Amino acid sequence: MRPSGRAPDEMRAIDIQTGFTKHAEGSVLVSFGDTRVLVTASIEDRTPPWLRGKNSGWVTAEYSMLPRATHTRGIREAAKGKQSGRTQEIQRLIGRSLRSIINLEKLGERQITVDCDVIQADGGTRTASISGAWVALRLAVNKLMADGAIKEDPIEAKIAAISCGIYQGTPVLDLDYIEDSSADADANFVLIEGGRIAEVQATAEGATYDEEGLLRLLRLAQIGCNQIFAAQEAAVK
Amino acid sequence: MRPSGRAPDEMRAIDIQTGFTKHAEGSVLVSFGDTRVLVTASIEDRTPPWLRGKNSGWVTAEYSMLPRATHTRGIREAAKGKQSGRTQEIQRLIGRSLRSIINLEKLGERQITVDCDVIQADGGTRTASISGAWVALRLAVNKLMADGAIKEDPIEAKIAAISCGIYQGTPVLDLDYIEDSSADADANFVLIEGGRIAEVQATAEGATYDEEGLLRLLRLAQIGCNQIFAAQEAAVK
Amino acid sequence: MRPSGRAPDEMRAIDIQTGFTKHAEGSVLVSFGDTRVLVTASIEDRTPPWLRGKNSGWVTAEYSMLPRATHTRGIREAAKGKQSGRTQEIQRLIGRSLRSIINLEKLGERQITVDCDVIQADGGTRTASISGAWVALRLAVNKLMADGAIKEDPIEAKIAAISCGIYQGTPVLDLDYIEDSSADADANFVLIEGGRIAEVQATAEGATYDEEGLLRLLRLAQIGCNQIFAAQEAAVK
Amino acid sequence: MRPSGRAPDEMRAIDIQTGFTKHAEGSVLVSFGDTRVLVTASIEDRTPPWLRGKNSGWVTAEYSMLPRATHTRGIREAAKGKQSGRTQEIQRLIGRSLRSIINLEKLGERQITVDCDVIQADGGTRTASISGAWVALRLAVNKLMADGAIKEDPIEAKIAAISCGIYQGTPVLDLDYIEDSSADADANFVLIEGGRIAEVQATAEGATYDEEGLLRLLRLAQIGCNQIFAAQEAAVK
Amino acid sequence: MRPSGRAPDEMRAIDIQTGFTKHAEGSVLVSFGDTRVLVTASIEDRTPPWLRGKNSGWVTAEYSMLPRATHTRGIREAAKGKQSGRTQEIQRLIGRSLRSIINLEKLGERQITVDCDVIQADGGTRTASISGAWVALRLAVNKLMADGAIKEDPIEAKIAAISCGIYQGTPVLDLDYIEDSSADADANFVLIEGGRIAEVQATAEGATYDEEGLLRLLRLAQIGCNQIFAAQEAAVK
Amino acid sequence: MRPSGRAPDEMRAIDIQTGFTKHAEGSVLVSFGDTRVLVTASIEDRTPPWLRGKNSGWVTAEYSMLPRATHTRGIREAAKGKQSGRTQEIQRLIGRSLRSIINLEKLGERQITVDCDVIQADGGTRTASISGAWVALRLAVNKLMADGAIKEDPIEAKIAAISCGIYQGTPVLDLDYIEDSSADADANFVLIEGGRIAEVQATAEGATYDEEGLLRLLRLAQIGCNQIFAAQEAAVK
Repeated sequence: MRPSGRAPDEMRAIDIQTGFTKHAEGSVLVSFGDTRVLVTASIEDRTPPWLRGKNSGWVTAEYSMLPRATHTRGIREAAKGKQSGRTQEIQRLIGRSLRSIINLEKLGERQITVDCDVIQADGGTRTASISGAWVALRLAVNKLMADGAIKEDPIEAKIAAISCGIYQGTPVLDLDYIEDSSADADANFVLIEGGRIAEVQATAEGATYDEEGLLRLLRLAQIGCNQIFAAQEAAVK
Repeated sequence: MRPSGRAPDEMRAIDIQTGFTKHAEGSVLVSFGDTRVLVTASIEDRTPPWLRGKNSGWVTAEYSMLPRATHTRGIREAAKGKQSGRTQEIQRLIGRSLRSIINLEKLGERQITVDCDVIQADGGTRTASISGAWVALRLAVNKLMADGAIKEDPIEAKIAAISCGIYQGTPVLDLDYIEDSSADADANFVLIEGGRIAEVQATAEGATYDEEGLLRLLRLAQIGCNQIFAAQEAAVK
Repeated sequence: MRPSGRAPDEMRAIDIQTGFTKHAEGSVLVSFGDTRVLVTASIEDRTPPWLRGKNSGWVTAEYSMLPRATHTRGIREAAKGKQSGRTQEIQRLIGRSLRSIINLEKLGERQITVDCDVIQADGGTRTASISGAWVALRLAVNKLMADGAIKEDPIEAKIAAISCGIYQGTPVLDLDYIEDSSADADANFVLIEGGRIAEVQATAEGATYDEEGLLRLLRLAQIGCNQIFAAQEAAVK
Repeated sequence: MRPSGRAPDEMRAIDIQTGFTKHAEGSVLVSFGDTRVLVTASIEDRTPPWLRGKNSGWVTAEYSMLPRATHTRGIREAAKGKQSGRTQEIQRLIGRSLRSIINLEKLGERQITVDCDVIQADGGTRTASISGAWVALRLAVNKLMADGAIKEDPIEAKIAAISCGIYQGTPVLDLDYIEDSSADADANFVLIEGGRIAEVQATAEGATYDEEGLLRLLRLAQIGCNQIFAAQEAAVK
Repeated sequence: MRPSGRAPDEMRAIDIQTGFTKHAEGSVLVSFGDTRVLVTASIEDRTPPWLRGKNSGWVTAEYSMLPRATHTRGIREAAKGKQSGRTQEIQRLIGRSLRSIINLEKLGERQITVDCDVIQADGGTRTASISGAWVALRLAVNKLMADGAIKEDPIEAKIAAISCGIYQGTPVLDLDYIEDSSADADANFVLIEGGRIAEVQATAEGATYDEEGLLRLLRLAQIGCNQIFAAQEAAVK
Repeated sequence: MRPSGRAPDEMRAIDIQTGFTKHAEGSVLVSFGDTRVLVTASIEDRTPPWLRGKNSGWVTAEYSMLPRATHTRGIREAAKGKQSGRTQEIQRLIGRSLRSIINLEKLGERQITVDCDVIQADGGTRTASISGAWVALRLAVNKLMADGAIKEDPIEAKIAAISCGIYQGTPVLDLDYIEDSSADADANFVLIEGGRIAEVQATAEGATYDEEGLLRLLRLAQIGCNQIFAAQEAAVK
């Protein structure tokens, strides 16, 4: 039995509140149960140095946890003077995921920076970030299209992410913090609408699994992502 | 006329939402009009090295703006690798203000860290932070008292802060961003319930004022802080 | 009674020695009693990036304490790898103060950097820095005018600063280190010749004061700054 | 056709030279074709602060590329003052992988740090690092056992890693630099002797793949890792 | 008697293996006994900002020890976030030495960066680095000349370096680690073929010496450098 | 002819003003012509971690140039966030020099930190620092002996330093800035009273010299240091 009483293939409640802040071109407060992430998409008329004059845009992401998003207060990275390896790993993952579903030439010579700031953490902050980031990106691109700055839609598909794991021997979907802390194996899947895989990050520090186990986790992820795609669709309507 | 149509001594709407996040011992989302700050108070059973064994607690504060709290995206301080002079100045001000109304001996050998993260900025983020911080601190101390960890209440008074300025020749209360950008002079007052002054930070980069001008701003601040004290009282009830 | 035997409204001896070093366009060793600060003003033919092509100059300041300016040796900020919040707060204050009395358009597209290095500290280092900085700036601008690089004098007034505080219940002028360490309240005033206020930074960590107290400190500051204006006048003659 | 002329399931030549340097408890120069990594395992009689007194050892890893390991010179991370996100991601992966096959209690209260310094890069540096790291770790642990410092062998299995990808539509094993630069998808597998999976990191920035594609890459990885296990066995004999 | 059994004026075995790595324009693994340094010379078509448009090239050097090059593991400088004073001192010495024998105008507007990474340390790593660096530089310049990028040879002479010291009262040549640790005085000489001195760095922390002692060390260094010049000549043939 | 009109073996005027600041246990303003360095020696009752419990004291040094000590303003190292290689090299030299003439066991378990802050630079700042540092150290140790904290004098000899160089073909003593900028070779000698050598740092970036040249520079240095020893003796009287 899962601590939350959920069925193995049962997601937590998903909530995607658009327009949570007013300045960003795209702004979303995304919740997966008690995990809440504020995601903003900011458009700037510049691209990184290595893309100048190459007729291409850029999408990148930054990620942070507020110090007391967690059970015990963490040290603020700005105070420590550097971002942790974990933070950098996550923000690289979010950026790569978004770039896998956007046509950067169609975006034009501009950069969209997606900021994911975790307000409250209860497991799955990186996957909630990616799932919310797609909505913020969609809203920002909609604005560019409404303003006539872009002719053709550069977004090619929806993308979503979810964590799965083996908890007390059973593959389960959408781990919360308690499950995550004691899971035997933990895998994050980033999936594209239509059944394709963008990223798999499967780790087994405490235990290991075989080919069959990996497949069972992937299939749970597909169930979860289909629900996220529906929530994204509803949010941008 | 003020851009917002407010009277010179009229505050923006104040909203203090307690329990906004679940992990912190005190958690508040404070709004002054469109300025919104998430404030959490975190209790830890340790004190800074210089206080060890001195039978005293400590209260400190950290402040940060989310990158897209503002009209244009700012660079994340964690990515730059250091906190700006402005950030440090503000968090030192918040900490000093809170320490002026708490008895650190009565707090006992523990530290309360107040994190002020600006979700959306429209002027007056440091004063909203202080005003909200008192509520978060109050809630955290209430918890310590309810748990029996503290016998006597260490909080001696309410504290609140507001900015005033001279806008197009007229002293006005609670500057929003538009006013703040073009004000001739700008002063932040931190006041203690009962008419006492904890801090004055009055700056005139564009213009200057005399003793009479300073007094008029101080009196506006007293009007404003009285309203904040009432909102704080209502919030912790 | 003050530890130094001074009357409540009595300043320490002020000494402003010009030309203390030979390379800087303006160079001053300023003393307020045992507090001694070496201030240099350096002219460079460049402005910060955000002012390029805007037909405006810039004045900025940096502040530092030599490690053994104080009773016990402090860690060198260059060795620690960062400037403290206190240092940044002070150098921002010095720069703002100087910019409040100089016309940056008349200065032309050049930057003047004022370096304030505290050789020996006995209270009031930031206010001594501002008071000395005006002289160094005046000397550097005189040089520009003598060289024909500037036609109209960009300096619009004298500026000076002094600290006041409430020491054992009595408002006193120009706190030295012993007074500063045990004062109930401490306020730094930056005043412009002619009775106008540029900055007030009044802090009460240990105690608080009311409107009347603030006014009494301000009036002491006016007495002190008038003496500083006279010393500045004599120094640049 | 692969640029190197290899068959899709053909590895590059593996070479594992033990004892390459004399000071480290375990030292290996591992080559996969032109990719060469110097791996050392260093034993220290201390553990990280969070493990003190918990009767457990620790294994961690660091990774670096020499500046001219690559086609064009990269900036030295020590000169830049920080490790890149990529470096941190890789060294976290190496450490996690090694910890998945070692019993930290049996290791005792000591730390083994595995340093992977890439002398020459031609694709697959992180997987070569993991594969070589197992040998260096094995040699260091053998030394502890020979010295009588450890009674029971803490290493529970062999571990190896290999990259696979989809190159011009075909799944291929052990990507070299040319293939890696233009592969449609790229996956790193860390496998444990006996068919279990420790880690999967599959990324598709340019393209995507489905469940079937992921399985085909995993099966290639199993072929490759079996050859690495044999080479590891030969090296430690 | 020297711990190694060498005569006072006897060098360790010198080995210079060219082409150790394939990407760098010049690549050398240089050994003085058990001290082994990988030296690469990298050509880039850019010069430092202060040389732009001055019709001159630049030669610079970087130096690093792999963490386990030494008896006990050192902390990686990239992980610490800064290069030690010792590292900076050594890399400045290597760069100055190379610049003393190259005509930067003849090199043309390009930079050669020489990276010296110590694989294994047994005393004399800085002098081995300089001696090997000349060979790497020579190979890189040969490549530029073979490609027709340079017409006239910019290298004016060979340069080599060796350490000497007073060990148990006797001046000895080419100190190894054991001797270096307990030598009374330690001097590094950088000599140019033909008897000229480029640098002397003679230090006596434990003891001191007089003019006669300095001369005796210099004469030993001349003996040693002549052998290094011969090894350099053989290596580039 | 030297630009200053001095004879080749003629020093600049030496001035050593003791007690320049009041807090430090030893304080000196040392001048060699227009080069002026403020040197303080600070005693602390602690030693570095690696010396704890070893019954030994420590002497270390820090060095800095005030930003406008030079012709053009340099960037403040505290603002840059790190000390330059040159700064570290110099402060390591000063510390080593002082440790070569002090018996650290006799000093007892305490640390003396010597801070050398260059107020005005005109060549020879590191050698002026060492020469002044001995006086500051002597004064601080005298204080320890007068207080009865130390029984036996730990200082074993005087130490002084001077730069020499080959200027337009002629060996000259005590280079000023103009000579230093265009000298063919530049050597800093640290000498101990009685004719012994503590350090030689001889560099020839533009030119080179031979054994004879080195000896001539050394002999000039001996002339110079004898004058410095006399000035040190007079200063501490």
